[in-house]
Amino acid sequence: MSNITGNRIKLGIFGQSHSRAIGFTLEGLPAGIRIDMERLKAFMQRRAPGNSPLATQRKEADEPEFIAGLADGLTCGAPLTALIWNKDAHSKDYSNIKDMPRPGHADYTASVKYGGYNDIAGGGQFSGRLTAPLCAAGAIALQLLEERGIRVFSHIYSIADVKDTPYPLTGPFEDVSGKELPVIDNDVMNKMQERILKAKEELDSVGGIVECAVTGVGAGLGDPMFDGIENTIARMVFGVPAVKGLEFGRGFEAASLRGSENNDEFCIEEGVIKTRTNNHGGILGGITSGMPIVFRTAFKPTSSIARPQKSVSLSKMEEGVLEIKGRHDPCIVIRAVPCVEAAAALSILDYVL
Amino acid sequence: MSNITGNRIKLGIFGQSHSRAIGFTLEGLPAGIRIDMERLKAFMQRRAPGNSPLATQRKEADEPEFIAGLADGLTCGAPLTALIWNKDAHSKDYSNIKDMPRPGHADYTASVKYGGYNDIAGGGQFSGRLTAPLCAAGAIALQLLEERGIRVFSHIYSIADVKDTPYPLTGPFEDVSGKELPVIDNDVMNKMQERILKAKEELDSVGGIVECAVTGVGAGLGDPMFDGIENTIARMVFGVPAVKGLEFGRGFEAASLRGSENNDEFCIEEGVIKTRTNNHGGILGGITSGMPIVFRTAFKPTSSIARPQKSVSLSKMEEGVLEIKGRHDPCIVIRAVPCVEAAAALSILDYVL
Amino acid sequence: MSNITGNRIKLGIFGQSHSRAIGFTLEGLPAGIRIDMERLKAFMQRRAPGNSPLATQRKEADEPEFIAGLADGLTCGAPLTALIWNKDAHSKDYSNIKDMPRPGHADYTASVKYGGYNDIAGGGQFSGRLTAPLCAAGAIALQLLEERGIRVFSHIYSIADVKDTPYPLTGPFEDVSGKELPVIDNDVMNKMQERILKAKEELDSVGGIVECAVTGVGAGLGDPMFDGIENTIARMVFGVPAVKGLEFGRGFEAASLRGSENNDEFCIEEGVIKTRTNNHGGILGGITSGMPIVFRTAFKPTSSIARPQKSVSLSKMEEGVLEIKGRHDPCIVIRAVPCVEAAAALSILDYVL
Amino acid sequence: MSNITGNRIKLGIFGQSHSRAIGFTLEGLPAGIRIDMERLKAFMQRRAPGNSPLATQRKEADEPEFIAGLADGLTCGAPLTALIWNKDAHSKDYSNIKDMPRPGHADYTASVKYGGYNDIAGGGQFSGRLTAPLCAAGAIALQLLEERGIRVFSHIYSIADVKDTPYPLTGPFEDVSGKELPVIDNDVMNKMQERILKAKEELDSVGGIVECAVTGVGAGLGDPMFDGIENTIARMVFGVPAVKGLEFGRGFEAASLRGSENNDEFCIEEGVIKTRTNNHGGILGGITSGMPIVFRTAFKPTSSIARPQKSVSLSKMEEGVLEIKGRHDPCIVIRAVPCVEAAAALSILDYVL
Repeated sequence: MSNITGNRIKLGIFGQSHSRAIGFTLEGLPAGIRIDMERLKAFMQRRAPGNSPLATQRKEADEPEFIAGLADGLTCGAPLTALIWNKDAHSKDYSNIKDMPRPGHADYTASVKYGGYNDIAGGGQFSGRLTAPLCAAGAIALQLLEERGIRVFSHIYSIADVKDTPYPLTGPFEDVSGKELPVIDNDVMNKMQERILKAKEELDSVGGIVECAVTGVGAGLGDPMFDGIENTIARMVFGVPAVKGLEFGRGFEAASLRGSENNDEFCIEEGVIKTRTNNHGGILGGITSGMPIVFRTAFKPTSSIARPQKSVSLSKMEEGVLEIKGRHDPCIVIRAVPCVEAAAALSILDYVL
Repeated sequence: MSNITGNRIKLGIFGQSHSRAIGFTLEGLPAGIRIDMERLKAFMQRRAPGNSPLATQRKEADEPEFIAGLADGLTCGAPLTALIWNKDAHSKDYSNIKDMPRPGHADYTASVKYGGYNDIAGGGQFSGRLTAPLCAAGAIALQLLEERGIRVFSHIYSIADVKDTPYPLTGPFEDVSGKELPVIDNDVMNKMQERILKAKEELDSVGGIVECAVTGVGAGLGDPMFDGIENTIARMVFGVPAVKGLEFGRGFEAASLRGSENNDEFCIEEGVIKTRTNNHGGILGGITSGMPIVFRTAFKPTSSIARPQKSVSLSKMEEGVLEIKGRHDPCIVIRAVPCVEAAAALSILDYVL
Repeated sequence: MSNITGNRIKLGIFGQSHSRAIGFTLEGLPAGIRIDMERLKAFMQRRAPGNSPLATQRKEADEPEFIAGLADGLTCGAPLTALIWNKDAHSKDYSNIKDMPRPGHADYTASVKYGGYNDIAGGGQFSGRLTAPLCAAGAIALQLLEERGIRVFSHIYSIADVKDTPYPLTGPFEDVSGKELPVIDNDVMNKMQERILKAKEELDSVGGIVECAVTGVGAGLGDPMFDGIENTIARMVFGVPAVKGLEFGRGFEAASLRGSENNDEFCIEEGVIKTRTNNHGGILGGITSGMPIVFRTAFKPTSSIARPQKSVSLSKMEEGVLEIKGRHDPCIVIRAVPCVEAAAALSILDYVL
Repeated sequence: MSNITGNRIKLGIFGQSHSRAIGFTLEGLPAGIRIDMERLKAFMQRRAPGNSPLATQRKEADEPEFIAGLADGLTCGAPLTALIWNKDAHSKDYSNIKDMPRPGHADYTASVKYGGYNDIAGGGQFSGRLTAPLCAAGAIALQLLEERGIRVFSHIYSIADVKDTPYPLTGPFEDVSGKELPVIDNDVMNKMQERILKAKEELDSVGGIVECAVTGVGAGLGDPMFDGIENTIARMVFGVPAVKGLEFGRGFEAASLRGSENNDEFCIEEGVIKTRTNNHGGILGGITSGMPIVFRTAFKPTSSIARPQKSVSLSKMEEGVLEIKGRHDPCIVIRAVPCVEAAAALSILDYVL
């Protein structure tokens, strides 16, 4: 079913942009775990830059309230459920969007699927807001992974036409999560900010690519065919709004290589079997090789822009022009970084437990 | 579980490259369907070029034997199970690969996962051979889709550095399935063949990209979040060996666009709501828009090449050189085309039924 | 995963007896449904008799707060999530039970499974309290079924040694839900009450059997083998605490019959195919026949009784005597009636949608 | 989906009574297991008494042919698929049953569900024949359990009105699998045989109850709510044709007991926590207590009897009389014994692995 994923652990996400609350239920966690709330909040903070001029100004406290699954502050084996209350939901009028769907958004497809009963306010269940519970669950997964020596890194690989230094596929992977723009090369930061602010000024938006690496995963994890690590990450990553592409290791580039170039030779380093290069991105046949898992996720530019756009009136069945008032997010890529990490962490955890 | 996928219809695939048989079980098909065996065979023929010098020379009759699920030649509601016998399985010695895994292949990761008990012969369950039952099941899905006005097209988008003309995202989509090399631009055919034969001559291989389009799918199909059309296609496509990347519509390119460029304006054509462009590849919020579903899948070059490659001996834990004797497939991309169509068809059928 | 069930609709239940809240998430409901909150509350009232001396005196308002899945008061296609706050959770000391498990309860098995981290307060996730969200979800299912002409009836078939008149298997089924004790034969009511009060007085408890009937289900629903109607009801009914037996139609009695006695002859009534008798309880081969679905569920007596009982100290690994103070429920069977209806309704709805 | 069950291991069953073959696919078994084929055949022999006058005379070799999942005779991690060819399928005319459904059988319900396209021959997918692959898979599960110290016992608890000595709930459990009629009390054997032969002579059939016990399962297995051990066994057992009731431990009888009678006191025996009695049948809150798991399954009498029975003509929509020629099975209970063991073993294995 659509909002539930995972085999050993099950993640269910619920809520709409303007429902009373959004949240998640996570089943299958070990009992006896203390969730580090400070780190959870710090992680979620990366998703909600708050005052940054680079992102939407909706202020979301985003402090999950755990209502079930804990006893004496520790996981108790019962499903873990947490809520994030939607305090900052504007009760503005969405009837224009209800009748005239935003280009690039799910307004139209949701309207057809749900016979017009879809929640249009703020994008309903298709809102990027739903990545808040994803990140909250992901923060927990990250904590459990870290206790097992597994770490997840990511950076903005590109925004618009500006590219950061890519991760070396074999690592090491710099932790840039503390930066305002999580990039490796500080020199590109200004350019990226400039692209975002220019787009914002022009009532437009920009897209980008997030690169993610997972280290410390031993060899032999993953199931063949439809439940490999790649399939699982893919299923979850495409659940993050605006994702339109995904590639592992050398990815699309591998399609232009020779086998002799792309194959990663095995070698032994300090008694451990490794590969000298990591074009395979840590996964062969759906199963981990022990090398870092590396993948890139492409995000389209935010569809909800303030520029007038051509659309159609569903009630009149005639073409028209839609103008959206109010704040909009010129670049979701910054907020997308922790979402990708969360998706990676939750996917991997399913195999690690 | 790894080899089973789907919600409304369930596909289970079984077998190894050299097991007695490979096959599939498909649950959830409507009763009363007559499977067009001639078309099924024709479809599977595209996967097994047989005598083509461009592909492996393993000759596989690949005629599925239906052993359950039919009554009087029609589907009867019971799970449909078909076998493809492995007649041409060479009983050659695989002990060298068992000890010295092929770079780029799942030999090593499978060996770790299964404690050395993995079936090494011909790649075992990780062999491209397993795409034969996938294609057989896909041929049935294609038939059911066609009866509902849904068609699946695909072509080789690129092989090595040679690119075919891309599909126009809004269509029309040329049916090139009858060509020896399924490309739109006949002029690139020779170049692609040349790349393949050159690689073969040099005991090497080349990769490529397959582009696929699905037309006739109405608006409103797909579930939000983790069970959208993109998630489902992704989960299945990454089950095809050698896939390392996937993108929908403008895909990775969308990451460098402005929202105003990437958003597809809604319009009305002959009383039907459409979008003027199709950068979204027919899917918004995981749900179909009624526009063609378009996606591209990147295949790495065949990992199993005849060149000597550096690897390690698992028993001696020392580095060495592996040389694989016998035939090898210099380019799996041609065979991959029907596999991608099958994955698309099976994914879509799950929502259509 | 343990707390999620269903194919087309998915029900997830979360919470513990004394967690901040308990609740449910229901996915797959049609969009555009208005939930009748008055009827929902009325249904839940049957589960929480409140002031009745026949049941526990814990007062639970049990008014579910819908926090997601609605827009303008109608289902919107997003998962429906509702909470019931645990206001009446006593903060009494459960350390005695933590160390000395209650006989017949899940204290011990949960302690082993969760390494002692299980939530012991009020029975944690194993508490009958968790049937409140089940009933809330069931009330919605009942409403949707009723709109499709499907009704669910039930009565107390027996309490201790006192038996009500059984339902005639072919119907009609009297609606006794309004009675304080939902029985058909008013004469047994006093006897049952007397058994309950006697047990209560003696710090003991009694069990009973609930009989349930579903009418208006057309023929042809259900999937063969492991997903038949019986399998689905069974999986859900055994999720209700204290259930130890389940039988359909003639059930265990059928085992002592001849085929010629047990087989239900087909006949035609007013142009509709029926069976003259209904020993099969409305299900043949896992699929509905169009006859009423009839089943009985056996509930063991409440395990949590006030009498001193022999148990063991887990910390000292020595035998001892456990005495539980405070209120206890002498007979859960009255409260179990709507739970069984909810389980039946949710099971059937999965096939009807 | 209907024919697939299990969480950690997945069992898929396919085939119809008269399809080319029937079989199963089992995913998730450990790699490196050698299946003891002699014991597997011996187990299956109990299901197919062959020459016994007490059962059907269809002679089925029932030797599963393993076509996938093995390498060098050991499980290799790939799905294990085995076939049983349907050699003895009579090509007799089933058109009478197709038009006039057998009372008590799934002919009618399947016809409605599948729009008349259901396979009627021999009962199609609803045939007891499908328990052959269930038993084959179960035999493997039993072997794996035995290697872990877990054993499954069962006996005929009753046939018609004749009752065997019940198992003592705390054990020990006599292994009576070698007897022609697997009963504990040899004195009831003649009576049971007499009941069966009498029914056969009168072209009729009898039902019965199978009691099953599983020993050696440690405490703490099972998931709460919908995936407890009881739920899982229930879902699988109700997949065996003709099952109409299921109870654990004291089962229905517990409904008439006091809590003080039914609760099983904890005690310590040789340093291990046990319960003095086992009314709970080894399961509390869905989780194993370490005591033997004991349950009883009620089988209705074979519906397919040779006596003339009233039914309706589906084509003419008029009542009539059906007479079935040829062999029929006067008592499926003997064959049902290994089926119940198989269902128990497969259910438990899902938690043990």
